[in-house]
Amino acid sequence: MPALRPLFVVAGIGRAAGTGAAAARRFSKEGYSVALIARGEDSLNALSEDIKKGGGEAAPYCIPSYSPDDIASAFTSISAQFPNSHYALRAALFNVGYAVWKLFLEVTAAEVQESLNTNVAAAFAFSRSAILKFKENNLNAENPKRGTLIFTGATASTRGNKMTSAFSIGKFGARALSQSLAKEFGKDGIHVAHAIIDGQIMTGAALERSGDKPLSGLSPESIAQAYMYLVNQEKSAWTWELDLRPAQEQW
Amino acid sequence: MPALRPLFVVAGIGRAAGTGAAAARRFSKEGYSVALIARGEDSLNALSEDIKKGGGEAAPYCIPSYSPDDIASAFTSISAQFPNSHYALRAALFNVGYAVWKLFLEVTAAEVQESLNTNVAAAFAFSRSAILKFKENNLNAENPKRGTLIFTGATASTRGNKMTSAFSIGKFGARALSQSLAKEFGKDGIHVAHAIIDGQIMTGAALERSGDKPLSGLSPESIAQAYMYLVNQEKSAWTWELDLRPAQEQW
Amino acid sequence: MPALRPLFVVAGIGRAAGTGAAAARRFSKEGYSVALIARGEDSLNALSEDIKKGGGEAAPYCIPSYSPDDIASAFTSISAQFPNSHYALRAALFNVGYAVWKLFLEVTAAEVQESLNTNVAAAFAFSRSAILKFKENNLNAENPKRGTLIFTGATASTRGNKMTSAFSIGKFGARALSQSLAKEFGKDGIHVAHAIIDGQIMTGAALERSGDKPLSGLSPESIAQAYMYLVNQEKSAWTWELDLRPAQEQW
Amino acid sequence: MPALRPLFVVAGIGRAAGTGAAAARRFSKEGYSVALIARGEDSLNALSEDIKKGGGEAAPYCIPSYSPDDIASAFTSISAQFPNSHYALRAALFNVGYAVWKLFLEVTAAEVQESLNTNVAAAFAFSRSAILKFKENNLNAENPKRGTLIFTGATASTRGNKMTSAFSIGKFGARALSQSLAKEFGKDGIHVAHAIIDGQIMTGAALERSGDKPLSGLSPESIAQAYMYLVNQEKSAWTWELDLRPAQEQW
Repeated sequence: MPALRPLFVVAGIGRAAGTGAAAARRFSKEGYSVALIARGEDSLNALSEDIKKGGGEAAPYCIPSYSPDDIASAFTSISAQFPNSHYALRAALFNVGYAVWKLFLEVTAAEVQESLNTNVAAAFAFSRSAILKFKENNLNAENPKRGTLIFTGATASTRGNKMTSAFSIGKFGARALSQSLAKEFGKDGIHVAHAIIDGQIMTGAALERSGDKPLSGLSPESIAQAYMYLVNQEKSAWTWELDLRPAQEQW
Repeated sequence: MPALRPLFVVAGIGRAAGTGAAAARRFSKEGYSVALIARGEDSLNALSEDIKKGGGEAAPYCIPSYSPDDIASAFTSISAQFPNSHYALRAALFNVGYAVWKLFLEVTAAEVQESLNTNVAAAFAFSRSAILKFKENNLNAENPKRGTLIFTGATASTRGNKMTSAFSIGKFGARALSQSLAKEFGKDGIHVAHAIIDGQIMTGAALERSGDKPLSGLSPESIAQAYMYLVNQEKSAWTWELDLRPAQEQW
Repeated sequence: MPALRPLFVVAGIGRAAGTGAAAARRFSKEGYSVALIARGEDSLNALSEDIKKGGGEAAPYCIPSYSPDDIASAFTSISAQFPNSHYALRAALFNVGYAVWKLFLEVTAAEVQESLNTNVAAAFAFSRSAILKFKENNLNAENPKRGTLIFTGATASTRGNKMTSAFSIGKFGARALSQSLAKEFGKDGIHVAHAIIDGQIMTGAALERSGDKPLSGLSPESIAQAYMYLVNQEKSAWTWELDLRPAQEQW
Repeated sequence: MPALRPLFVVAGIGRAAGTGAAAARRFSKEGYSVALIARGEDSLNALSEDIKKGGGEAAPYCIPSYSPDDIASAFTSISAQFPNSHYALRAALFNVGYAVWKLFLEVTAAEVQESLNTNVAAAFAFSRSAILKFKENNLNAENPKRGTLIFTGATASTRGNKMTSAFSIGKFGARALSQSLAKEFGKDGIHVAHAIIDGQIMTGAALERSGDKPLSGLSPESIAQAYMYLVNQEKSAWTWELDLRPAQEQW
């Protein structure tokens, strides 16, 4: 029986210039097929095409929202397109984020709801689908871990600040989820990790905002390198949480 | 002008045998009028009557749900019944909690939603109403703080565990909120605190469950004592967070 | 048999204008006899006299250093002067601190040693003597806790910063100790607590340094109020750790 | 000018079957010369010889104690043997540890002192020498970071437990130091990281103790893999702290 091709699923692509896109490209280069889940169709398709042009295998899954149902539907489609006969889901990245930076009294109830839906409920649904897929993988000498599920966290995952009440309620929640999952599923060979991105990510949007001023934040490629390391960690020494920040960051 | 009578608002009364009820009784004894917000009408009315029989002033606000609108409506009613001409809101306790103890794959999307709504979105709405009311209070020598807002946290507020994925996403979120609020409103004389209740609270329900086995958890009255202390802290030394657990607890 | 008079021991008095002195005065007012341990004889004696003038009972124990032997000797003297026939040690405060604010490469080996000796080894020795004394107390209905041991912590107890390498190694260590002790001795009715003083304490020295600029830090009396609260916590709800900071502090 | 050969210094080799030895072998395989600092001459020499037999370059530095002077002397010898003309210190690992597992009242003052000396004061001295050496390296396109300093932490680095009072005072202190250093020297291109080894390391001694029962702890090689990853992290995304534990660990 030929070896199964490893599959990487990432949710949250944004404008295809940040962490999600960098991770997709990196995993593709390392031999993974990649399934891309996002809401913005243009960026999603462009990234998928780009990976394919580079010789990789990729497929876009545009979903109308990050509701539990839409996420579950995306995984159903992924399972159909990447069947267990030829593929094995080995890594999943929840990179979706809904950020709000506002004084508390300016936050609307709709923003609170959106933060909880997108940062937490969607993470819950994504984790469920990923873990159910991981459980279909067999453990053996060559594959001592069933799969790795990674969450992109932020400074707001561990600290509530003046402008981040609506954001941190969501990021704290996803961090709690990642810790519960790490504890529950480690013994099953499923590795769950949480990365605290403690600084600004140099996405296209951030670079634009910075204008002439050189921006010294985290490069998405460096974050992708960290994610690849986590996926490759040996079973005797798994990391639940690490922080990542630029060398020159004051913290 | 006669001094305004201090008002204490608590949301989350349960079966009137736990932390919310104990806090209401304690604040009543210390001279506060108490406004009680809860969903269960019978327990709510019984507690209110009981406090009045004991010589206190109390009023029940039964709400159909902890939605932002229902919470805001309750505060509107409270403001009408306890007008600023005679009362000043000085303390507010968010004691609402929705607990789920389940393995991750057994948690339903509805339970995730309910946890986020009740533990976080309701906390957000309650905080908004309480802080807006606090802001109506004048700062002066006699009242150097406008008001104190307290959250009842739990072990699951700082640790995600195997059975608590759905619970901890909510409790982490409320803790994040409390920290953001403490940082934003301290300079305005509004004190926000978060108590980590790290053990079982000896409510009526818990005592029933324990049957013949003596239960050695936290007494609601001891927690209420801590809340009263927080409200009385002098402005030069405010606590954001403290943990509370029984002397004999293993941790 | 007449009730035993409660005794409070505090180590670390400084210039008798800070936390240690404020705690001594406060506990004296609440009916405790106070035993004062410090290195600076003049401040020590002045404080002791002052408490006695105010109608309290106090005794100074000047020690040449905070070495384990000197601390043990002080407790031997205290036991002789406040015998178990008439006194019971009920509260102890380790308020000694050795602070260094320097860039890492400017710290000397002697400063490292002094920080570890004074902030940690002395805390260890003080705790040993206090706990052994607490164990001589009987538990009964009137005294459900044998005693309370409190540590004065600092921002540097939980965060290493650029200028605090030599200070935080000591404060982290004392915090670790307090947690170990809280876990080991809670079941014996001995309560151990750690207060994170997250701001500048308005001691005489700090007020002098601030000159004309009004200083808005923590008043020692407010901290003493917190310590008294901890000592009076009921056995079903003990706090290991709380933070204290001025209302207006940015954090 | 030929490229300088990278040098790796590790302190703490134990019986040459644990983390320090595994790291030395791993860095040797990746092209580093290795300087080994330890107290036990036999294990030290055996490891050095073994690395040389495998084609690597290694040198042992046996020191009588982990006093600041002995550590500084070792670095002087290392500088002589690996001169800047041909070598550049690129990575340093403080792997020294002094563990005590005892109930609090059974810990001796000597054990407290030894824990503070070995776990903290020695870490301070080692860091000083390593950072001074790193500062001799030039930053350039090929070497965007001057060097990486790693600390081997433990569960006791973040939690004081019943049996770990004397151990955790030291491990907390080293963690504080690592955080201060990370914050101070990041902007200089010096990366400081702290690994929390949250489980039993499968050293020779641990394997012996486990007897017939299969031991499922962390393999030293997995930890060494993590250290190599940290050293290779790109400058835009550095980790200060990560945890490492076996997949099946309950935590």
